[in-house]
Amino acid sequence: MIVDASPLRIAHIAPVATTVPPPKSGSVELMTSLLTEGLVARGHDVTLFATGDSTTRAKLHAVYAHGYWHDENMWPWELYEMLNLAAAVERAGDFDIIHYEAAYYPMSLAFARLSPTPIVQTLHHSPSEAEIALWSKYPEAPFVAISKEQARLLGGLNVVDVVLHGIDTDNFAFREKPDDYLLFLGRFTDGKGVLQAIEVAKRAGMRLILAAAEDEYYREKVAPHVDGTRVIYHGEADYPAKVKLYGGARALLYPIQSSEPFGLVLAEAMSCGTPVAALDRGAVREVVDDAVTGVVFADLEQMVNELPRVFDLDRRRVRERAVARFGAGRMVDEYVAVYRRLAGARGARRA
Amino acid sequence: MIVDASPLRIAHIAPVATTVPPPKSGSVELMTSLLTEGLVARGHDVTLFATGDSTTRAKLHAVYAHGYWHDENMWPWELYEMLNLAAAVERAGDFDIIHYEAAYYPMSLAFARLSPTPIVQTLHHSPSEAEIALWSKYPEAPFVAISKEQARLLGGLNVVDVVLHGIDTDNFAFREKPDDYLLFLGRFTDGKGVLQAIEVAKRAGMRLILAAAEDEYYREKVAPHVDGTRVIYHGEADYPAKVKLYGGARALLYPIQSSEPFGLVLAEAMSCGTPVAALDRGAVREVVDDAVTGVVFADLEQMVNELPRVFDLDRRRVRERAVARFGAGRMVDEYVAVYRRLAGARGARRA
Repeated sequence: MIVDASPLRIAHIAPVATTVPPPKSGSVELMTSLLTEGLVARGHDVTLFATGDSTTRAKLHAVYAHGYWHDENMWPWELYEMLNLAAAVERAGDFDIIHYEAAYYPMSLAFARLSPTPIVQTLHHSPSEAEIALWSKYPEAPFVAISKEQARLLGGLNVVDVVLHGIDTDNFAFREKPDDYLLFLGRFTDGKGVLQAIEVAKRAGMRLILAAAEDEYYREKVAPHVDGTRVIYHGEADYPAKVKLYGGARALLYPIQSSEPFGLVLAEAMSCGTPVAALDRGAVREVVDDAVTGVVFADLEQMVNELPRVFDLDRRRVRERAVARFGAGRMVDEYVAVYRRLAGARGARRA
Repeated sequence: MIVDASPLRIAHIAPVATTVPPPKSGSVELMTSLLTEGLVARGHDVTLFATGDSTTRAKLHAVYAHGYWHDENMWPWELYEMLNLAAAVERAGDFDIIHYEAAYYPMSLAFARLSPTPIVQTLHHSPSEAEIALWSKYPEAPFVAISKEQARLLGGLNVVDVVLHGIDTDNFAFREKPDDYLLFLGRFTDGKGVLQAIEVAKRAGMRLILAAAEDEYYREKVAPHVDGTRVIYHGEADYPAKVKLYGGARALLYPIQSSEPFGLVLAEAMSCGTPVAALDRGAVREVVDDAVTGVVFADLEQMVNELPRVFDLDRRRVRERAVARFGAGRMVDEYVAVYRRLAGARGARRA
């Protein structure tokens, strides 16, 4: 078997809400950065379409100096995203493949039949049936799903592969001996289950640290539970703070209420050696190896009662499994394979 | 001089929020319908990109059965608009010109350099400086302004012409003897000046009829003034109701607070012979012939004090001037000239 190692010319289209990588939260920006840098490290010719204040070893094509999260005049944001993507399609001849990170919705469908270079999109949310009905007007447009759970929702569309996210396992470093607290890290929403996390910690009689940006939901529903000793509010964590918080936790609580297509915090915690206590929703079983890197519980009652099972897991083994499954290298390799397949198919049709 | 009378192949892109023409309110849909039907009547080959429940003598290309105002599952609406426009660009070879009615914002910029057929856009709002800064990344993309006032705001962009809106002056029929009330017709917002209209009517000691859709603003700020005898709430008016309301009014009150790029209700009222009492803002002086079809007042105080000047205007003359200036034929001719110029320029570049 001959492995094709020739460099690809790749346009990678990030959202233009903030920098790549993001200053604090921003899972799409984080994954985009990791993939772009991994592709560059493998010798590919990558052009990153992102804000001018982004940091990358790829060629940076910046339509805007900064992102619209940081400038209230940049509105409506949709047009900014659209023109960032258009800038890549206008240069389609420079690329073998255009990869669009559809943070909100796949605007790239609008270019699917206009671009001479294939556009593949990674979707970062769980689409509704109505969204799928609309997108199905472009049944040929290639999608990469970020889990089998998401691929299932994309039924009828052209899902060319499932590629689980990778993370930077070097920086989400292993810590053998944690401190004595539980951790909730994520946005404060009903879907993320922060109130359930508080309930679990209280009933288990353990300290809980909450890390997320302060917002209306926090002030109304979360803050009344925060006492600074049993339930502690850390604020939004930047990258180094996250690593420290994960490493020090006995377990990450993930009592997720909605069906999510992935769960980046799970992989990040595991990379630090921290096992997770998760509810069985969405893609959780694809990310967590039950009884190895965490425990997947049927309901909250079981999570409370059997929480010690999570603490008993071997942190070193948690780390090893996380590195094997969520190391960035695996993600980069899988995307390169997708790119080659799509670029090759286009080339073959032309020949 | 030889007049080019050959038929043009025109793609006319309507918004897909509701039908064309609209069931009740919807100035963009109304103007789009009038232009499309006028172009068909002149023998042009028009394809209207609009919802499937629209009514037209043009060829209808319907990407959706109905509009997203009528279906909460059709969300986010931006993608529906985008794919409706994309459907036309995908068929660009079928058309000499693509005319996009940018009801919200000029998404067509994203296709400006990808479409082999020129896309011209009519803008229906007053853009902000930040919007202009963004759109200026496509300085070649042709815009039609709907007033000189709007053209001024579009400084730095490629404004190829100013074309005032036309209306259906046959249906907005003349009525010589009005009833004894004033009329406010428009959305209930601070910008439209409904509270100022109420103040003027009260101080002038005259009856006022309000016609607009009920909303939060109405319930909070307008309803307390409605007594059913001096201030009467009609609800939202459909087309025949509008014509009746205009015709019966002594004057249309237009104490506009924001700077609007046109003012369709002014032209509609005038077509029925009803003079207007307007404040001097935005494009008002371009639509109203002062002391002929209405009076343009400097401020509200003057409007109250000199309101009888409006009643003294000759309704027949108001009608005649409105037909001459806002008859649909004039608008259709001016758009055809724009289309020929842009299609010809493209043809010349190719030759």
